[in-house]
Amino acid sequence: MPESHPFIRRLRESQTRASSSICLGLDPRPAQHGTSGSTIAAVVDDYKMLLDAVVDDVAAVKPQAAFFEAHGLAGLQALSDVMHHARSLGLPVVLDAKRGDIGSTAKAYADAYLQAGDFEADALTVNPFLGFDTLEPFVDQVASSTKGIFVLVATSNPGRADIQDAQPFQPTGSQTVSEALAAWVQRTNERLGFPAGTYGPIGAVVGATTGTTLKTMRAAMPNAPLLVPGYGAQGASAADASQAFDQDGGGALINASRSLLYPEGAFNLEASRRATTAMKQAFTAAP
Amino acid sequence: MPESHPFIRRLRESQTRASSSICLGLDPRPAQHGTSGSTIAAVVDDYKMLLDAVVDDVAAVKPQAAFFEAHGLAGLQALSDVMHHARSLGLPVVLDAKRGDIGSTAKAYADAYLQAGDFEADALTVNPFLGFDTLEPFVDQVASSTKGIFVLVATSNPGRADIQDAQPFQPTGSQTVSEALAAWVQRTNERLGFPAGTYGPIGAVVGATTGTTLKTMRAAMPNAPLLVPGYGAQGASAADASQAFDQDGGGALINASRSLLYPEGAFNLEASRRATTAMKQAFTAAP
Repeated sequence: MPESHPFIRRLRESQTRASSSICLGLDPRPAQHGTSGSTIAAVVDDYKMLLDAVVDDVAAVKPQAAFFEAHGLAGLQALSDVMHHARSLGLPVVLDAKRGDIGSTAKAYADAYLQAGDFEADALTVNPFLGFDTLEPFVDQVASSTKGIFVLVATSNPGRADIQDAQPFQPTGSQTVSEALAAWVQRTNERLGFPAGTYGPIGAVVGATTGTTLKTMRAAMPNAPLLVPGYGAQGASAADASQAFDQDGGGALINASRSLLYPEGAFNLEASRRATTAMKQAFTAAP
Repeated sequence: MPESHPFIRRLRESQTRASSSICLGLDPRPAQHGTSGSTIAAVVDDYKMLLDAVVDDVAAVKPQAAFFEAHGLAGLQALSDVMHHARSLGLPVVLDAKRGDIGSTAKAYADAYLQAGDFEADALTVNPFLGFDTLEPFVDQVASSTKGIFVLVATSNPGRADIQDAQPFQPTGSQTVSEALAAWVQRTNERLGFPAGTYGPIGAVVGATTGTTLKTMRAAMPNAPLLVPGYGAQGASAADASQAFDQDGGGALINASRSLLYPEGAFNLEASRRATTAMKQAFTAAP
């Protein structure tokens, strides 16, 4: 029987080591570090301490590119530093940059984030708005490497329905954009040689706040790892988010950012550590 | 009668000065600079010379973020340098980064690119996949500033139909995602106080390779500046692209990248200057 893709084996090792599927989101908010606010470099020093403290409790780390880009070149240096630190600890890095563009431009984004360099991640979030053809350069990049992508399939914000619930003309008029994307993800993992019972490198972002969507999406993409935002600050419970797991309790990363970084408002290492442990326990106890 | 938004006045001044609506796309390809390829910093030195040479012939400059990000921190330093150089020449910079995310994350992208800082642009391209609500932080940013955005409405690639031709449930089942986006763009400019006869800061990306789409889109968004890719290397003619203009010949930027940067394959300043002049003449002659 074929094995899962190397990216999945890396994720699974990390989940086993941490006994959790927590993905720690890094959304730097300098005003919440120190009494008068802090530089982005100092925020990343705090984050490195946090990663050292929770490395045995989290399965992956998800820096949000926007919050680093907002600080210009110093922010991007800080992003590179924290990505390198996480990977040096053995933590897979999912860069949440939601990139997407046509042909050779998409290839340039894949080069930027899915191969050796200042911003090397283990996986990248990808925006499919420009069409399935524009995802192919990312597919090519991960097919024969240790990397993965997470395609935005059903996000967790209220306005998601504007476009994601629209109905494509093809292949049928009865499915939504989100359903068509889920079908594309499943089809693409199969095309890459990952049949039932294995996981391929093409994952999906599916929000935990969208009612029964998560369970439906899990069933529609049995071969795809899911990245699940919406737990914690966005309101989904552990039971809600747990619908992303397969029958063995694998196949998904549950993201939490603010609720772990800033549980008391201002950054506090011990408070973050306690919040991380509490999240781990909440998922162990979830039905 | 109300005036157009300050971003539009800035564009119009630049178009008048250059007697053209050319937007010069910057897609660095180091292998095409020098016989053995070049660093990204050296490419940007070539681009600065090019901007000095064509400043009287182009109305705006559009760096493609992906091609800089692919070179890591050095690439981002180069991006910052070329953006500053263009703006110091008085050329409006449209950063083509196609960013989009929810709430506070979208705000962070607006902060990164639409206010003072290392990557200050005059306008940013924005991806609407996550829903109309996720565009509001960008709207807030441009409403009371000199900046603009260009929302992806109808791109020029073959796969665009997968999502952009889907039919939203709301407000009616008879329009496509692209049409719903165009209606949102028009409605938003009106909401910001720019009625018929003026232009607001919310623009749209509409490809020139999509048959009658461009003419239809121009009519659907009379108050929106259009950013039009697809001319040159992607195959649209000057007559095709000219459908983006209003009756006064304004209201649109026509982008060309490879066909102006690398008309002979390897970078050659004189060849690029000739290609730019030829494009200017082609549009003067277009019906």
